[in-house]
Amino acid sequence: MKFSCNSQFLQKAMGIVDKAIPVRTSMPILENMLIELNSGELKLTGNDLEIGIQNSIRIENESTNGSVLVKSKILLSILSKLQNQTVQISVDENNSMSLKSENVDFDILCSSKEGYPEFPSLSTDISFDVKVSELRDLIKHTIFSVSMDETKQFLNGILIKNEGNDLFFVSTDGYRLSLKKHTLESIEKEFYVIVPYKAMNELNKIIQVLEPDKIVQVKLSDTQVSFALDSFLMISRIINGKFPDYNQVLPKQTENIFTLSRRICLEAAERASIIATSSNNVVRFIFEGDKLGIKANAIGLGEFYEEIAITRISGEGEVRVAFDVKLLLEALRNIESDEFKIKCNDGATPFMFEPISEGDYMYVIMPIRANEFQPTQVQKEQPVTA
Amino acid sequence: MKFSCNSQFLQKAMGIVDKAIPVRTSMPILENMLIELNSGELKLTGNDLEIGIQNSIRIENESTNGSVLVKSKILLSILSKLQNQTVQISVDENNSMSLKSENVDFDILCSSKEGYPEFPSLSTDISFDVKVSELRDLIKHTIFSVSMDETKQFLNGILIKNEGNDLFFVSTDGYRLSLKKHTLESIEKEFYVIVPYKAMNELNKIIQVLEPDKIVQVKLSDTQVSFALDSFLMISRIINGKFPDYNQVLPKQTENIFTLSRRICLEAAERASIIATSSNNVVRFIFEGDKLGIKANAIGLGEFYEEIAITRISGEGEVRVAFDVKLLLEALRNIESDEFKIKCNDGATPFMFEPISEGDYMYVIMPIRANEFQPTQVQKEQPVTA
Repeated sequence: MKFSCNSQFLQKAMGIVDKAIPVRTSMPILENMLIELNSGELKLTGNDLEIGIQNSIRIENESTNGSVLVKSKILLSILSKLQNQTVQISVDENNSMSLKSENVDFDILCSSKEGYPEFPSLSTDISFDVKVSELRDLIKHTIFSVSMDETKQFLNGILIKNEGNDLFFVSTDGYRLSLKKHTLESIEKEFYVIVPYKAMNELNKIIQVLEPDKIVQVKLSDTQVSFALDSFLMISRIINGKFPDYNQVLPKQTENIFTLSRRICLEAAERASIIATSSNNVVRFIFEGDKLGIKANAIGLGEFYEEIAITRISGEGEVRVAFDVKLLLEALRNIESDEFKIKCNDGATPFMFEPISEGDYMYVIMPIRANEFQPTQVQKEQPVTA
Repeated sequence: MKFSCNSQFLQKAMGIVDKAIPVRTSMPILENMLIELNSGELKLTGNDLEIGIQNSIRIENESTNGSVLVKSKILLSILSKLQNQTVQISVDENNSMSLKSENVDFDILCSSKEGYPEFPSLSTDISFDVKVSELRDLIKHTIFSVSMDETKQFLNGILIKNEGNDLFFVSTDGYRLSLKKHTLESIEKEFYVIVPYKAMNELNKIIQVLEPDKIVQVKLSDTQVSFALDSFLMISRIINGKFPDYNQVLPKQTENIFTLSRRICLEAAERASIIATSSNNVVRFIFEGDKLGIKANAIGLGEFYEEIAITRISGEGEVRVAFDVKLLLEALRNIESDEFKIKCNDGATPFMFEPISEGDYMYVIMPIRANEFQPTQVQKEQPVTA
């Protein structure tokens, strides 16, 4: 194998593939990137057996075909220190890779591709297209409420499903739930898959640097999901399990609806959290008239109280509720619009947060019922556990 | 106690004092900041019994005298979330502190100043003045080579001493040494103190935000050192011990002198470190003619070679030497001028690095003698151990 290429261009293409390459693993062969050159197409592959990523670039000038496995982190370190210059890369019959650039000369021991796992292929006739910007939006609004509790595997990912032309991304950890809807052009088949957190998180990082108007093709089978765009392809396994039937526990109707400023509410919640952190994260909201009182107190530390303005759209009377301030802050930080709606019945049933200019997003948070935060009691009130 | 003040102004003044306040300690009283208000002077004190910091601000509008101890981190968290507004602070007879700002109301439990350690005072007639910019320079060039080895207490700080009007800051960990000189206006007494790393490091952070032309007064006694500027005062204990006599081991004359570009040498050393990291950090320099060859190799990983241009000022013949690449990188990152001199005799004696436009700075690095890095052997060659 022999080719030359701009070091930064190559580093960028490899950086994407490196997201599927583990740093340390019980199978050291997976720490390599597979590099294959064929008729000017340089194909880069990473695979940790959970997700696999392929990315290709064109080599414009003369090159010699071949393939090699090279330690991904070392190669990326070298390219990052080559100052945007042309690098000549060649691999000899002993799988020694030479990288030359001006006065710099690296010789790196590599290996043949023998024993490297086959890249998975996905056969399905279910697929849909979504813009990069839309996919970013769908992931951003749901990834933060994925459960990290390894004993609940079916919550360790984002549910991707459709109802007719409506595409849904949903995640929950049992204490809160995020739901983002996006309407597709047209879709023929029904689908329902749970994509692991890791795949969604790495995909999210990769698409941050892509042009927002590009189209990503998503394919789904019974066991795998893939995301493809130009010469980029990611395949991930999906989680085998049933996602909780959240529709059952969401309130069909809500008596009280308020609107308020996201920024003002967020800033007040951040102040409350200074005290609440020392008191099991409990923060209390008291809705009354056109005021929302926010309270926190911690024994031995002190108290916090603040009033912010709200507008009541429906309902009457006082509503008192206690939340986990961390879940509240995460919700408020992930809402983008200036104003949002709070819909609720009373302090013992789910509260729904709906951004006003992001109509397709809903965040549901369970109140804390007891005077003090008691995880076992809260558990009983989970809105979404199957 | 009662006063009002801009929250950001207060936060900035307290942030400086907080550098002497530990997060967690076996003496919880030290986690407090002492706040004393007297005739419009608000004096803030932090003290971890190793370093003490005082800082005062003027309260311009009406105020009531008093004093209180308040948890420093909590108070700073609150001020940082008050969005640059006026905050009214009052402390009642039960030592409850009320902080009010617009619709925000914090009540924080505090305590009386009883039992808080007396702020140390320093009686001495030895002092000198130095500009903020000069002090920054003196600390920056020496702090990175202070030894972190707790069994060698006498190396755990920066030596501050004078020879006539020449002020010296010196630090070493036994493997390399940094020496920075600054000429003072006039000084009558001799001094020689080792100031602990922690005091120098916190002082360094504090003076980064001060005006470069302001004058810092440094006072020295047998047991303490203080740094004062306007209403700011830091007092630190000094390390009881003898700093090694480094002059004895520095080469009086060097046969070979080279000049080279700092940036080019640094970039090459960074590339070498990619390989050297897997090989006990050993990097080899081969000086020959107008070229410096830089080499690294690691079994099972590969090799690196690069040539950079140098200018020979004196000496002849080849010089071969091996360095610890981490010590080399730290030196090259802390030199500011574009060009620097390397002065040496052979690969077994100390190498001196001297920036060309920073004539008063010298970095000395001991070569690694063995084929492979063997700490015990290197130990024997330490230039500076007493």
